[in-house]
Order: sequence, then structure tokens, then C-alpha cells
Amino acid sequence: MIDLRPVGYIIGMLISVLGLTMLIPAAVDWAYGSPHWMVFVESAILTVSVGAVLSLASRDALRATLNIQQSFVLTSAVWLTLPLFGALPMMLGAPHLDLTDAYFEAMSGLTTTGTTTITHLDGLPPGVNLWRGLLQWLGGLGIIIVAMIFLPVMKVGGMQFFRSEGFDTLGKILPRAMDISTALIRIYVGLTIACMMTYLALGMTGFDAVMHALTTLSTGGFSNYDASFATFKGAPEYAASVYMALAAMPFIRFVQMTQGNVVPLWRDPQVRAFLRWMGYAIAVIVIYRMIRHEASFWPTLREVTFNVVSTFTGTGYASEDVTQWGHLAFTVLIISGLIGGCTSSTACSVKVFRYLILFEAIKVQIQRLYSPHRLLRLRYDGQSVEDGVVNSVVAFFSLFILTFGILIIALTFTGLETETAMTAAWTSIANIGPAWGPEITANGSVADFPASAKWLMSGAMCIGRLELMSVLVLLLPRFWRV
Amino acid sequence: MIDLRPVGYIIGMLISVLGLTMLIPAAVDWAYGSPHWMVFVESAILTVSVGAVLSLASRDALRATLNIQQSFVLTSAVWLTLPLFGALPMMLGAPHLDLTDAYFEAMSGLTTTGTTTITHLDGLPPGVNLWRGLLQWLGGLGIIIVAMIFLPVMKVGGMQFFRSEGFDTLGKILPRAMDISTALIRIYVGLTIACMMTYLALGMTGFDAVMHALTTLSTGGFSNYDASFATFKGAPEYAASVYMALAAMPFIRFVQMTQGNVVPLWRDPQVRAFLRWMGYAIAVIVIYRMIRHEASFWPTLREVTFNVVSTFTGTGYASEDVTQWGHLAFTVLIISGLIGGCTSSTACSVKVFRYLILFEAIKVQIQRLYSPHRLLRLRYDGQSVEDGVVNSVVAFFSLFILTFGILIIALTFTGLETETAMTAAWTSIANIGPAWGPEITANGSVADFPASAKWLMSGAMCIGRLELMSVLVLLLPRFWRV
Ligand SMILES: [K+]
Ligand SMILES: [K+]
Repeated sequence: MIDLRPVGYIIGMLISVLGLTMLIPAAVDWAYGSPHWMVFVESAILTVSVGAVLSLASRDALRATLNIQQSFVLTSAVWLTLPLFGALPMMLGAPHLDLTDAYFEAMSGLTTTGTTTITHLDGLPPGVNLWRGLLQWLGGLGIIIVAMIFLPVMKVGGMQFFRSEGFDTLGKILPRAMDISTALIRIYVGLTIACMMTYLALGMTGFDAVMHALTTLSTGGFSNYDASFATFKGAPEYAASVYMALAAMPFIRFVQMTQGNVVPLWRDPQVRAFLRWMGYAIAVIVIYRMIRHEASFWPTLREVTFNVVSTFTGTGYASEDVTQWGHLAFTVLIISGLIGGCTSSTACSVKVFRYLILFEAIKVQIQRLYSPHRLLRLRYDGQSVEDGVVNSVVAFFSLFILTFGILIIALTFTGLETETAMTAAWTSIANIGPAWGPEITANGSVADFPASAKWLMSGAMCIGRLELMSVLVLLLPRFWRV
Repeated sequence: MIDLRPVGYIIGMLISVLGLTMLIPAAVDWAYGSPHWMVFVESAILTVSVGAVLSLASRDALRATLNIQQSFVLTSAVWLTLPLFGALPMMLGAPHLDLTDAYFEAMSGLTTTGTTTITHLDGLPPGVNLWRGLLQWLGGLGIIIVAMIFLPVMKVGGMQFFRSEGFDTLGKILPRAMDISTALIRIYVGLTIACMMTYLALGMTGFDAVMHALTTLSTGGFSNYDASFATFKGAPEYAASVYMALAAMPFIRFVQMTQGNVVPLWRDPQVRAFLRWMGYAIAVIVIYRMIRHEASFWPTLREVTFNVVSTFTGTGYASEDVTQWGHLAFTVLIISGLIGGCTSSTACSVKVFRYLILFEAIKVQIQRLYSPHRLLRLRYDGQSVEDGVVNSVVAFFSLFILTFGILIIALTFTGLETETAMTAAWTSIANIGPAWGPEITANGSVADFPASAKWLMSGAMCIGRLELMSVLVLLLPRFWRV
């Protein structure tokens, strides 16, 4: 049997931290004169209490190491339990969501998905919107740490390829985790502040700048406006594009940059492919819209850049109704979302490096057809890639597509229209944000979805955010018996 | 450099055979008193001449063996050149198609896809419809032979797993090909005649019975009626379901049955999974329709069975407007088409055995996460499957999905609506037949598509039918240099 107490201890700590964070929106609501601040204080007391009890109860088992099973249980348990507490303030106070909606909203926050179940964001107490932003920001930070520290040793979806850059031995997870986490947090906070200052400089209010900086750097996409980023047409769209793109790049490269080494970022094949493919998508849609709608170049370039970067990085802000851009543009956006950003970033979906490995794997398979005796080694970034990584990546891609397909069927079962089921599956499995279809409200909310669809999407957001296999492994009975 | 003369010799022979086959519709048109018979005689003379010249010109290089490169060139060249000649009668006479449409129609025939570019089938000379049926029947036979004889030695998409059942050494391709082909042809002809007799017994006219037997056993789906199989509501739907299902089962098992051995068919995991999954799809849609439309059981069972089997096997007959069955039913049908039948049958798409291997591969990948040191062997049908096969299967699936995605984008580029582009890509890459969308005519024809879309679909049908990799390998410059 797995000793779950170390997992309980860490989760208890994280729940307590989440509870303490609730004091920030409490202070903001208090400062804005909103009586809603009490809700956050109550939620904080409740959350910190539960977290403290859980930690204290499992304190004895604390060791400096986690074994592989415990690592798997921990990552899944974090993203399954924290939304319960993140949901509290939204259930106890405005917007008075039920458990289904509040859990969905908090899961959408902590997984940086950004789909909302709230139909009137503009009217919420400022603290609630800030809380939504904070959930995304914390979720984004959490996922970078998980991607840097846990996934490589867990060997999920080929992530073991990035192991050498993180950790060497499993036994050292916790101590070294501190060093790396500190460096990452510093960069994440730094970029968030830089983004916020840029937004301020471009004329956003203090609150809007903070809110959108939190959800830009986490590629989360929550906004405090029903109109989403359409509220800030113009220069802020370019600024957001830059910071969304940065948020989707490998943070390990930024750590190296702070050590004075810019070359690794520039040479990283993921980064190059990511920027190149985004460039292609932007170019295609700009040309298409200029020809089809006789649109003028500069506004088109701005709108297209923003919406492509937003979808490609999985941020999910909208500044335009992209369904009006024509079928080609829409299809390119959907595919962009299925690519995603780089590893060890806040971006989600399949990710660029897996496509690079996948293309190479298919090429090798085709080459083997006519020269079966030649030894073909797959190379990535100048290194030869071992078979284990390749198999893992290809299995990940297949699993992603199969899960996507099953999710579409399951969502159709709940009664959603095909278009809605498809885009809702897409947005939740790839943690993007927007969905389209007759059941989507005017502000893009899934409030009118049946509860079963919301729970399916909550599950899919969690599975998608944690790279599928790390969650699905818990479903195998053997996992618990080893 | 590859010696292309043996390829030229065989293709010349096949073209000549195709030319001689044109005398059948010629005879039929003549018997029906249609002056159109002359068109087939002219086409036959032209085709046989070209074939004979090609064969004679490359006769000197005839050997009893083909090397691996020649096998690849041969299979692709057959399905790229034969449609040119199959198109001739439809260009020279009614329905007077242009090259784009006629090549599409012949490719759709020889790949057993069944999508048509003709908007009024009922008014065609009988010979033309028979010719369409014959193209599918020949294409179906051709693909069984390729799947049994060439693909296993070509190791395409994991087909090497079935090698032991076919051939052992490459050098023996041609001599043993004769034995196996003879047995296959006998079974294929036998089943076609049985199907025709059944259709006759159920009240179809002689012509309709022949036409539909040809396109049932080839899982092709061409009909001589604009209403497709809706012309024969009732018992023929059940009969067709049985023969379509048989056509999608591994023909090697039928060879074993004729030798008195029924067990292998019954025990074949592909066959069991194929029947089980089809059963699930039928059950889900029947229950859904009965609840949703308060439909009565027996007609619903019949209609659903027919349309599910037709889509699952990739035949593509329609007896109902399935888009009216609701989103769930439609989604299940689309997914069914992406599964397909068994290997060494006339069915197409990804195929059941690849999904069985894929599921196992994903399971092994997930198990490896928590017991990295245990040796996990993937098993299929009681045999351990070597890594080469697994990698090949998983790469095939990934390539299939990527090609599907790229094809949707490319078809959207030609100006098609998203729904049309998606179903047209689905129908052509998986060789199914029907497509839906505003650009589809009342009888389900793609006549109104832009020419670029038709050429893209022709290419996709060919690539899909030949299991992708066997065609794509020809695009690598290295292939030609080895
Ligand atoms: K997002
Ligand atoms: K077909």
C-alpha cells in the first residue's frame, strides 16, 4: 500500500496557502468598500483550518523524499482537491454558484483553462474577479513547478527527455525542488509585474492591469469583463501577445538567461518552431481576411496576432468574434489550440516538442520501410532520443486524440449540439478557454450547460492540464497494489 | 536507381485487364439497347492498346521477384494510373465528365470510397453504372491482394504482424502471390454471387442485384440510384448488413474456413472486437432514437443496423438522412467510420487491429510509469508483439490523424464550409463515401466542389486506401536514391 500521509501533509500545506491567499481579495473588497470581503475571510478561516488539520494529522510521515507513486497521487490530488476550496468564496458569496459551477470555475482557474460559468462578470465584487485571476496565477505557477520537477521523473508523455535539465535522482525531489522553485517563482513574479506595468502604461486601470497580468502570465485567460480583451483594443493587444508568447516559452531558458546565457533560449528548437508556426498561422489568416473581407492591413494584423497568440498559447482571451473570420481562419485557430506552447511553461495542449518528436518518429518509420537494415536514430536538438521517449510521446499524442474523441461523444451524450460538444471538448482537454455553439451565452459562459457536461469538462481540464497519463495511471488497480 | 520496368510491365498488364473489363458494360449497354455501348468499346481499344504497349516496352525486365522499392512504386502507381483509364468511358460518353470529375469518380471507385461527382445517377446508361460498380469490385479485390501480399512485406503501419500468415521471404512474392490470389478471388467471387442471389431473392431486379452485390462486397457503396440504398428499404437492409460485415472481415479466415477450419475466424480478436464494437454502436443509437424520437423498435433496429454497419465497414450506402438522427447518433457514426473493419478485407480506415494494439501500447506506457523496471510485453492474439510492429501501428495512427487534420485545413482553403471540409476529409481519407454540408447536392454528390477540392480528395482517397505510408514514402528523395 502507498503511504498517503506525505501526500496529505503537502496538500494540507497547499490548502492552507490557498486559504491565506484569500485574504488578498478580502483586503481588496474591503478597500473598494464591498461588504463581500467577509465572504473571503470566512472562506479563508475554513480553508486554513482544514488545511492545517490535514497537515497536522499527517505530519509524522514527513520525509524529504517522495516515491514515484506518491508523486503521482500528489499531482492529481492537488488539482482535484484545491478547486474545492477555491470554489468556497464563490459559493458562500456572490455570484452564489452551486457546487457544480463553483468547482468548475475554480478548476478552470487552477488549470489555467479560463472557461467561465458566470454570465455577468462586470457586476461581480472586485474581490471575486481578483480571486479568479489569482487562481489562474497560482495554477500557472503550480504547473510550471510540476512540469519542471515532477513530470520528468514521472516520465509522463516523454517528459523524461527534459530530466537532465531538472533532476537526476528521484530521492532528491524535495530539496532540489526548493532551489528550482525559487528561481522559477522569481521569474514568474518578475514577468507578471513587467506585464502589469506595461498594461498600466498603456492606460489600463490598476485593477484591470493586475487582473489581466495575472491571467496573461498564466496563459489562463480569465477577464473581469464580459467582453474579455475586446475592452482593450489597440496597443494592449500587442503587449498581451508578447507576454502570452513569453508565458508559453520554456521557463528553464529564462532561468538560464538570468544567469547571463541567452543562447539556449534562442537555440531551443521548441521556441523556434513555436514562433515560426505562430508566424505562419498569423500570415495565413491575415492574408485570408484581407482578401476575403477587404480588411485593411494594420488593424487586421493586430487583431489576428492577438487572437492567434491567444489561442496558440492556450490563453483564450478574445478580442473579436473569430467565428466571423470565415471557415479557414477558424479552422487554423482550432488547430493552433491543438498544438500549444513549449514545455515547462504555463501553456497546455499537446505542445510543440511532442509534434517535433512525432514528425521525426513518423519520418523514421517511413524511412525504415525502404531501408529496414539501416540503424535510424531519431534526433532532437542535436541529441539522439532514446526509444522510450519516442514511444512515450507517440502514445501521448494517440491518447490525447482518443480522449478528445471520447470526450466529444460523452459531451454529446449530455445533450449538447455537435459544434458545442466539439469546441467544449477542445477547450477543456487543451485548457484553452473559449467554446462556441448555441448553448454558449452571449459572454461566452457555459452556465447553461447541463451539470453532467460541466463535471465532464472539469475532469477533462484536470486530465488535460496534468498531461493525461499522470491522472489516468491512478485508474489502474495495479497502481495501488505495487 | 530503381528499375521501373517490372513495375511498368505489371501495370501495363493491369491496364489491359481493365480495358478488357470495359467490354462487360459495353455488352450490357448493347443488350439494353443503349447506343452508349460504343463508348466502352472505344475506351477498351484505347486502354488495351496503351496497356499492351507499356507491357511490351518493359517486357525484357520481367523477373519473378520485385524488390521492396519496386513493390512500393507498384502499389502507388496502380492506384494513380488505373483511374485515368477507368475515367475514359465517363469522359468520352455520358455523363461527359471533365478530367477532374472523371478521375475523381474512377479513383472513388478503385479505392472503394464511393463518393460521387455525378448528380443524376438514375438517368445514366446502365453500362456506366455497371462500370462504376465494376471499378469498385476490382478495387476491392485489388486491395485484398495488396493487403495480403504486399503490405506485410512492406511493413506498412504494423502490417508485418500478419506476415507469417502470408509470405515469409520477399523473393517469393510473385510465385506465391498466384496461389493466394487464386484462393482469394474464389472467395470474393463466391461471396459476390451469394450476395447477388440474396438480393434477387429479396426482390431486386437483376441489374440492381448485380450492381449492389459488386459494391457491397467491395465495401464501395456506389449505387445506381440517387436515393442510394433507400430504394430498397426492408429486408435488403439486413441482407446488405450481413454481406458488408463479411466483406470487412479478414479474408484469410475465409480461406481457412474453406479448408474446414472455422475456429480461426471465431477466435480472431479483430473479428470479435469488430462485431462487439458495431453491436455497441447499434445499441447506443437504437436506444437514443427510441427515447429521443419515440421511434418504434423494429424499424429503428433495421435502419440503425444498416447505417451503422455501412459506416463502420466504410461502405457508405445510405438508407436514411442520418443527420436527422440527432447529434449523438451522428457523432457515433463519424467515430465508427474512423475505426473501420479488419485487415485483409475490403474495409478501410484505421482498422480494428490497430486500435487493439494502440490501446495495449497506451496501457503499457501507463503501466511503465509506476513500474519502470518491470519488463512489459505487449500481447495480441496470444502472441507477444515486437516493438517494431507497435511503433509502426502507433506512428500510423498519428500520421492518420495528422493527415486528416491537414486535409481539413487544405479543403477549407479551397473555400468549403467547415462542416463540408470535415466530412469530406473524413470520407476521403477513410474511404467511406458520404459527406454532409451546404455544398453537397441533393443526391449526396460533390459535383459543386471546386476542382482543387476534388483533386485533394482524389489524392486523399489514394493515400488512405494504400495505408498512407506506402504512398508517402515515395515523397522522400532518399527513397529514389537507395
Ligand atoms: K487558457
Ligand atoms: K466506401
